[in-house]
Amino acid sequence: MYRPEIKVLDCTIRDGGLINEHLFEDKFVRAVYEAVSASGVDYIELGYRASKKYFSADKFGKAKFCEEDFLRKVIDGVESNTKLSVMVDIGRVEPEDIPLKKDSVVSLMRVACYVKDIDKAIALVKRCADKGYETTVNIMAISTALMPDLEEGLSQLAECPLKAVYIVDSYGALFSEQIHFLVQQYAKYLKPKGIEVGIHCHNNQQLGFANTIEAIRKGANFMDATIYGIGRAAGNCPLELLLAFLKNPKFKLDPILDIIEKEFIPLRQKIEWGYMIPDMICGILNQHPRSAIALRSGKEKRSYSEFYRNLRNDMELA
Amino acid sequence: MYRPEIKVLDCTIRDGGLINEHLFEDKFVRAVYEAVSASGVDYIELGYRASKKYFSADKFGKAKFCEEDFLRKVIDGVESNTKLSVMVDIGRVEPEDIPLKKDSVVSLMRVACYVKDIDKAIALVKRCADKGYETTVNIMAISTALMPDLEEGLSQLAECPLKAVYIVDSYGALFSEQIHFLVQQYAKYLKPKGIEVGIHCHNNQQLGFANTIEAIRKGANFMDATIYGIGRAAGNCPLELLLAFLKNPKFKLDPILDIIEKEFIPLRQKIEWGYMIPDMICGILNQHPRSAIALRSGKEKRSYSEFYRNLRNDMELA
Repeated sequence: MYRPEIKVLDCTIRDGGLINEHLFEDKFVRAVYEAVSASGVDYIELGYRASKKYFSADKFGKAKFCEEDFLRKVIDGVESNTKLSVMVDIGRVEPEDIPLKKDSVVSLMRVACYVKDIDKAIALVKRCADKGYETTVNIMAISTALMPDLEEGLSQLAECPLKAVYIVDSYGALFSEQIHFLVQQYAKYLKPKGIEVGIHCHNNQQLGFANTIEAIRKGANFMDATIYGIGRAAGNCPLELLLAFLKNPKFKLDPILDIIEKEFIPLRQKIEWGYMIPDMICGILNQHPRSAIALRSGKEKRSYSEFYRNLRNDMELA
Repeated sequence: MYRPEIKVLDCTIRDGGLINEHLFEDKFVRAVYEAVSASGVDYIELGYRASKKYFSADKFGKAKFCEEDFLRKVIDGVESNTKLSVMVDIGRVEPEDIPLKKDSVVSLMRVACYVKDIDKAIALVKRCADKGYETTVNIMAISTALMPDLEEGLSQLAECPLKAVYIVDSYGALFSEQIHFLVQQYAKYLKPKGIEVGIHCHNNQQLGFANTIEAIRKGANFMDATIYGIGRAAGNCPLELLLAFLKNPKFKLDPILDIIEKEFIPLRQKIEWGYMIPDMICGILNQHPRSAIALRSGKEKRSYSEFYRNLRNDMELA
């Protein structure tokens, strides 16, 4: 699948950091930056730009805040054409803390929100765009969105200074025909305005890579992936699979294979992600992963089948 | 996806046994049979019927031979509507060793072959059908088949007493559009004769489940899966995901979740299967998994990226 418009964004550090409060060592973050740069990937997201007013720097790693000095240290001296991205969550950042683009190494600000918060996202997008950044909006938990709300939101987003708007299957609940439908809905509103459709998949049902491909087939041009699929709970679309699928000669697989062997196989022994039954159960029931994470952490003591029964019972209505 | 014609075949023991020479304990095989029976799955494949002339009973477990006394012991006293299947490989079984159906607990004989051996498969199918069994043919390594050969084979198979003919993506190399194409090719020859299309996927690119679904969407009605995706190298389509996707009320997920927790999580600590980079590399290059298995066993000493480079070099032509 060679389509020059396709942009790949690696969010290894940002999404992987949700497992460990972003407590990665600086040299690990730099190694990821080096590998992703060498692979020719278009963007790398090095974390969140969260405000220290809301999150303690004692508890969270530097990638939670992505201050300029941290980012500059990560990238210093590395040959790279990969643009830097950071994610901003509605209500977790003070817009006035975001520097002007001319004073920052960041190129892309990605605003994450739920459908209900699209108005707030638009306000933040405008602030970021005014400061000179590229911007996207990532609509999370899309498998719970009601279509009239989503369509209203997309029609508003179509009027914004955006590179892309993402389908984010936070719960890993969607199948290919739902992905096809959503890409087409997004494209209807966005493509006429020159805004691309993006896709970010979770792997609860081992469909992260498959659904990313299906989105590409239907015209999505911005895709998220992470090295070895790292990411909260079931993880994400693996970057190595995506690069192997895309035939664009600018992408190199070798640097990603090397860093998987050197850094990610050992890391996987220390922190947990990937296909696991509690998260699979949340995926098939279209539920937030929090209860699965609690079960795996040992905070809940239930067998898999009890967990499955309880989650279904919790969903029952009077 | 509720379609009453859909039949699910669990091949946990047969394909999983390729990792460990079928050296499963009897009580493990029985536990799998109990769980699969309780889940309402249509068929369970308990191994191969190989001849002891070709394989040593000292080296291989009982599921390699599936003699009647072994099978009877496994199923004795278990309440079940699940039919028994065994696989027979061309040239590894003596047809005269196969008892008459009336003297056997087996319902289904699955003949595995490559495209080039379809004539031999047909001869074996006829022997098995004459003895009273249901039969299928599983065409392995389908991602290497040449279309005229495959079409000739399918046209011959259409004249045989078969329940189904399977697409077997042995190398885990196919994407959805290739699956769609193959299902339609198979169906063109087989459906008019009342023979179903089957699908058996490997998970090298994390597409085992996704491709199984895609085959279902295009009309395949026989699908293979294994508990927790167990199977040689990258493993197979996970049964738990398939049952959750199929909305047929006859299927129960709970017994599969229970046995995963009790037997398969501990087993995975002892023997290796699932998404692993060497096997992923074989998948993206459409190659037999043997070199990946050698790498993982430590018989080859190469880094992932060296392995990738070497495999590509080996494929180069003069």
